[in-house]
Amino acid sequence: MIPLHSHPAGRHFLQIPGPTNVPDRILRAIDNVTIDHRGPEFGVLGKSVLGGLKKVFKTQADVVIYPSSGTGAWEAALVNTLSPGDLVLMVETGHFATLWKKLALKLGLQVEFLEGDWRHGIDPAQIEARLAADKAHQIKAVCGVHNETATGVTSNIAALRKAMDSSGHPALLMVDTISSLGSMDYRHDEWGVDVTVAGSQKGLMLPPGLSFNAISAKALAATETAALPRSYWDWKEMLAINPSGYFPYTPATNMLYGLHEALEMLFAEGLDNVFARHDRFGEATRRAVRAWGLEILCQNPSEYSSALTAVVMPDGHSADAFRKAVLQHFNMSLGQGLSKLADKVFRIGHLGDMNDLTLCGTLAGVEMGLEVAGVPHKKGGVQAAMDYLTQSSMAALARAA
Amino acid sequence: MIPLHSHPAGRHFLQIPGPTNVPDRILRAIDNVTIDHRGPEFGVLGKSVLGGLKKVFKTQADVVIYPSSGTGAWEAALVNTLSPGDLVLMVETGHFATLWKKLALKLGLQVEFLEGDWRHGIDPAQIEARLAADKAHQIKAVCGVHNETATGVTSNIAALRKAMDSSGHPALLMVDTISSLGSMDYRHDEWGVDVTVAGSQKGLMLPPGLSFNAISAKALAATETAALPRSYWDWKEMLAINPSGYFPYTPATNMLYGLHEALEMLFAEGLDNVFARHDRFGEATRRAVRAWGLEILCQNPSEYSSALTAVVMPDGHSADAFRKAVLQHFNMSLGQGLSKLADKVFRIGHLGDMNDLTLCGTLAGVEMGLEVAGVPHKKGGVQAAMDYLTQSSMAALARAA
Amino acid sequence: MIPLHSHPAGRHFLQIPGPTNVPDRILRAIDNVTIDHRGPEFGVLGKSVLGGLKKVFKTQADVVIYPSSGTGAWEAALVNTLSPGDLVLMVETGHFATLWKKLALKLGLQVEFLEGDWRHGIDPAQIEARLAADKAHQIKAVCGVHNETATGVTSNIAALRKAMDSSGHPALLMVDTISSLGSMDYRHDEWGVDVTVAGSQKGLMLPPGLSFNAISAKALAATETAALPRSYWDWKEMLAINPSGYFPYTPATNMLYGLHEALEMLFAEGLDNVFARHDRFGEATRRAVRAWGLEILCQNPSEYSSALTAVVMPDGHSADAFRKAVLQHFNMSLGQGLSKLADKVFRIGHLGDMNDLTLCGTLAGVEMGLEVAGVPHKKGGVQAAMDYLTQSSMAALARAA
Amino acid sequence: MIPLHSHPAGRHFLQIPGPTNVPDRILRAIDNVTIDHRGPEFGVLGKSVLGGLKKVFKTQADVVIYPSSGTGAWEAALVNTLSPGDLVLMVETGHFATLWKKLALKLGLQVEFLEGDWRHGIDPAQIEARLAADKAHQIKAVCGVHNETATGVTSNIAALRKAMDSSGHPALLMVDTISSLGSMDYRHDEWGVDVTVAGSQKGLMLPPGLSFNAISAKALAATETAALPRSYWDWKEMLAINPSGYFPYTPATNMLYGLHEALEMLFAEGLDNVFARHDRFGEATRRAVRAWGLEILCQNPSEYSSALTAVVMPDGHSADAFRKAVLQHFNMSLGQGLSKLADKVFRIGHLGDMNDLTLCGTLAGVEMGLEVAGVPHKKGGVQAAMDYLTQSSMAALARAA
Repeated sequence: MIPLHSHPAGRHFLQIPGPTNVPDRILRAIDNVTIDHRGPEFGVLGKSVLGGLKKVFKTQADVVIYPSSGTGAWEAALVNTLSPGDLVLMVETGHFATLWKKLALKLGLQVEFLEGDWRHGIDPAQIEARLAADKAHQIKAVCGVHNETATGVTSNIAALRKAMDSSGHPALLMVDTISSLGSMDYRHDEWGVDVTVAGSQKGLMLPPGLSFNAISAKALAATETAALPRSYWDWKEMLAINPSGYFPYTPATNMLYGLHEALEMLFAEGLDNVFARHDRFGEATRRAVRAWGLEILCQNPSEYSSALTAVVMPDGHSADAFRKAVLQHFNMSLGQGLSKLADKVFRIGHLGDMNDLTLCGTLAGVEMGLEVAGVPHKKGGVQAAMDYLTQSSMAALARAA
Repeated sequence: MIPLHSHPAGRHFLQIPGPTNVPDRILRAIDNVTIDHRGPEFGVLGKSVLGGLKKVFKTQADVVIYPSSGTGAWEAALVNTLSPGDLVLMVETGHFATLWKKLALKLGLQVEFLEGDWRHGIDPAQIEARLAADKAHQIKAVCGVHNETATGVTSNIAALRKAMDSSGHPALLMVDTISSLGSMDYRHDEWGVDVTVAGSQKGLMLPPGLSFNAISAKALAATETAALPRSYWDWKEMLAINPSGYFPYTPATNMLYGLHEALEMLFAEGLDNVFARHDRFGEATRRAVRAWGLEILCQNPSEYSSALTAVVMPDGHSADAFRKAVLQHFNMSLGQGLSKLADKVFRIGHLGDMNDLTLCGTLAGVEMGLEVAGVPHKKGGVQAAMDYLTQSSMAALARAA
Repeated sequence: MIPLHSHPAGRHFLQIPGPTNVPDRILRAIDNVTIDHRGPEFGVLGKSVLGGLKKVFKTQADVVIYPSSGTGAWEAALVNTLSPGDLVLMVETGHFATLWKKLALKLGLQVEFLEGDWRHGIDPAQIEARLAADKAHQIKAVCGVHNETATGVTSNIAALRKAMDSSGHPALLMVDTISSLGSMDYRHDEWGVDVTVAGSQKGLMLPPGLSFNAISAKALAATETAALPRSYWDWKEMLAINPSGYFPYTPATNMLYGLHEALEMLFAEGLDNVFARHDRFGEATRRAVRAWGLEILCQNPSEYSSALTAVVMPDGHSADAFRKAVLQHFNMSLGQGLSKLADKVFRIGHLGDMNDLTLCGTLAGVEMGLEVAGVPHKKGGVQAAMDYLTQSSMAALARAA
Repeated sequence: MIPLHSHPAGRHFLQIPGPTNVPDRILRAIDNVTIDHRGPEFGVLGKSVLGGLKKVFKTQADVVIYPSSGTGAWEAALVNTLSPGDLVLMVETGHFATLWKKLALKLGLQVEFLEGDWRHGIDPAQIEARLAADKAHQIKAVCGVHNETATGVTSNIAALRKAMDSSGHPALLMVDTISSLGSMDYRHDEWGVDVTVAGSQKGLMLPPGLSFNAISAKALAATETAALPRSYWDWKEMLAINPSGYFPYTPATNMLYGLHEALEMLFAEGLDNVFARHDRFGEATRRAVRAWGLEILCQNPSEYSSALTAVVMPDGHSADAFRKAVLQHFNMSLGQGLSKLADKVFRIGHLGDMNDLTLCGTLAGVEMGLEVAGVPHKKGGVQAAMDYLTQSSMAALARAA
């Protein structure tokens, strides 16, 4: 076996768009001793985290927790509501939308995949038109990604819901919030989402290992006819026992400790403050990117992500060589470009347990890395970010006064 | 939110048959900072734990790791190898065998479930006869539980394999070792098992949240024709990328840290020493039970479990009332009787990170609890256990000298 | 460098009479990140722990905290109140009283050391007589140990105070509570103690590294004329800044986190419950010792310690060989005999974060160790302890009902 | 009691010049379970840390470890080597030199305190002249601070030694390295230092709570005649038992775990690399200060500290108001000006577990704080630091290639 904790001096900057830097409080919570998952103490924990999660999803409906990665929650959303051969409408917003599509195909669903350029979010009008054309209601569900982790492009879910409503189509709406929940505003009930998919390792600041579904009454009703085989992901067994705070199979107790702590932290800061903090980080990062003379992958400002920013590498330069130099010189991990974008973009995660100074350190690492890697750029990115952060921090204080 | 760590004085005795007491070393390993699951450091970790696990399974074949509870690994074993409507032969050794059967049915398999009395292991002769009768080879797999966590009864897997071989039947052999792996001797390759199912929270001394499949070449070949839909549990994507130490979707990084530490601990003690330690605990516990004048649920001494002992409650007494008294008076969790055995047995977990004195404390808690709860019994159980432990400890030292 | 955390399986039983088993909650508290000891957050911590400590000492007077071992608090008590050549009256209750005497001599004080047999506490009548004889009031202080960690013998401090009062002598009363505070009832104000000396690593359940003085107004006044040189231990600089929650030199921040947690735990359990718990452990242990046919070192039942029990080894047998066997076979550390008692007694610590089952495990380790080491004894010690624990636990429940 | 771990989002920047940011590895090491300080395992730990410390002090002579703050090690140096009324020559390099002087006076020593302007280090020529003039050898020791934590000014100890040698004077040389050891090159033996004083909470990256003396043979010999009373700080008792890895009184076991880990980290990085890293941070910081148009307190470039930089506040501006704004807006603690420098300087700690990006974050916090607090300055400090860090990182890589 090999030693695992021999790192360079100073704290590593984990600035991939998730898993994010897990705060000490959460790591310490996770390392509490494991308790009897059928004992009285556990029920209190279970009820507490299930209740807290509803506030984060902004829902009164049901939420389930899986011991699994976020990928599992994608699968759960589909197998609980659909039958083999069902048609699902998906939109190619990027790598993760594409993975969800592949997963659906592997499960035996049919997928209509609306092509995209990986630089824009979902077009509600396009969905509305497609649904309107589906007179026979063959489309059983529309699946979209709220925040494409591969591109830093968000989609307007409220507008998407409105478009679906306008079409009068009964398809379910399923939304992946894996990299947005807990970082950007999201409203399961108000936006009329039927199944929301989420994971622990991004805005919730936990290590990977838990995933979630928020489930509307309509989605729950769909389970009655959904014929895809399911057991591990079956909502019904979960929901039958969850009200008492327990789970049908052994839950990931220690991760639930961490979730409990994460919820306490989010509520102590206030969700709106959390979102505002991420918005500031997004804007500061984009100002830095522009000052460097580099291109933001996301092309529509109204679709900028507050959780991460994907940056286009100048032609003839390798994003991966750049990222490698950053890791080697500056002890920071940045997100790689995925599939179509491999080696062409790098992604700066600015979500989770971060503050202004970790963001400045992050952007300094990018700016210095561009120099070290010989990537053409202008200086002044960190300066631009600092100017904005200073300004907005002073403005916030003035407002508070 | 509620405070989670307010416990009575002294360390809780978590003596359910899993999750087990997680050693400090493992808890500390788990709370290391999360790293980039696509970075260079992660690959080293991934390869290390995958390699280490093979030694624990005693296999040269493939092992996969899921971020899931053990239930997930049951599902994985089936969906990767079978097709809808396939017939599976299962044996009713207890509650967990029954749960696995239900899971198989939910996935759309047919199950022939050989009835059992929950006090015996699998009868190899019965399997041999049944397979021999299946001239058409309709049975695609035989599924058995190595150590029934609900009963403390083991099954002889080597004999089962031999019986299957004698029958000349090509069915796959799948074995659940969730509560035996890392506590009792198990040999995936030598015993000719096709799929072994395991979890993190028992003999591996981790919190719940990881599960495993060990996969024979024959099982792997079966995936080619297996038509059950699968994505999260799909071995192929795992095995395609595992050799580099990475995973197709975000792994549960921090749990893998813990697994790494657990493997180091098991190998440092030596697997044979680990098994011998558990054997001693099992024998000491049974001597205590007999001294109390109570009945061991397992009826065949050759099938005693070294991981737990289920004890039959005298008629007219409630096992759950007894367990509740033990928790209230002595800060110890014991395992409950499940389904058919509800309130009729209690289970003493004696597996994982334990030593002679924690076992004595455990048995003292049982003996005092019997008194407190007014359960008829004789004194002297702890004394009997101590006599055995002393004797065998001296004998071990003499052997070593 | 060598690996530090490679231990045998199962949790070590640290049953020396301190340092005691540190609860997980406290270890986790200690590993929070270090903060600015001059920042606003620190002041809140400082005030909180200073206030909490007063409740533990049962005093309204001043308490100071040193980053040091308990030995430092002995020195602090003397250098703040006395001048070179001053005469101090001390009583030879055991090894630690003797060490305190040596320390006083090294500081240039004169010590009159009343001989003792290490099996009895302080005799108040003897003190009263000696003080009464000291017409010139040459004796400046009487120093006694509340709970002799080397012998398991306590002294009656209230009676000692009364004796001093009867003599009409103005000497200061200084009391070492290093191994009693937080385990046995102690009342700085009510008992009229002038300086109480304490440490972190026993009843307060912390690792070693903090020590304390509680200081009466009379002791504080004595500093005005006390001519022993002092700086690190100087109360005045401490008390000048403590009210704001800060310290004159860098405090041991992380240990203070642990102290904060320890105080929360003690108050949550309730000090009276903590004391009652220790009393039960003491009684149960003594019943075990008697059942083994061994002799308790302490000869006066009214002076039994609830924190530890020293057991006399039968003639011709080595206590250290026995302890070594216990460590080797059963992974438990017992306290050794010190100086005069070397190899003649062993000490069982039953203080701090313990419960009934850890005590039973501890006593089982002793009983099995006696067998392994070939020490003549009768069986039944654990049984006797269990009988008492059961009985008293049922009685407590009955009282609560 | 109050909650202690409720912090703003993101990791706090603890950029005071100590206590420094404690790395996770060390915090985790500290929270291992406490062991028997007289058991066999402890001796291995004790020998290991004592041996490792010698490498850090670069000495073959003795090193002692106290459970105390650094202040204790100051006191220990004096009480072990001097007698009441002895004359000590000290130099007013800043606040901490002044505190050491006060401590010496409180112990009953005479101090000749050479005045200084708090902007320069010790002048070897002045010492040489003074010693040469002391024909009667009344001066028993010269005490100096290697790195004045209050000013960021270092003194040339090698030159000081040479000056003392030239004078032919037998005075002992005592050096405070509290804020330099483990960050800047220091050579106890080669530089002929008699007593080196150090602490845990700066370059050694531990929480406060341990302090150290390195002791030359000459200093040890001085103990024979040194008449100051001593017990806790007495080297002799320590050195009598240290070779076996044990301590005369209860050591701070958990802090020693942390020390063990810290030594492993320092040796893994390599002391020379550690020093070079700190030198880079010092230079980068000074470039930032100059770019802001602010003044570095230290006036002699050959005396710049690599551990911290004190920055002079422009006239009419409050350093404390600035620091407060930085804490409020940017979650960073900076060091305050002390006594003479109160409110006139702020200090940037750049020592311990840091890397380039934490330094950039730190400097960004200062630059943004200057803006927020309305302190006149020029932008470009972070940019200047980044330019230097980039350049030197590329140069280092080129050298390595």
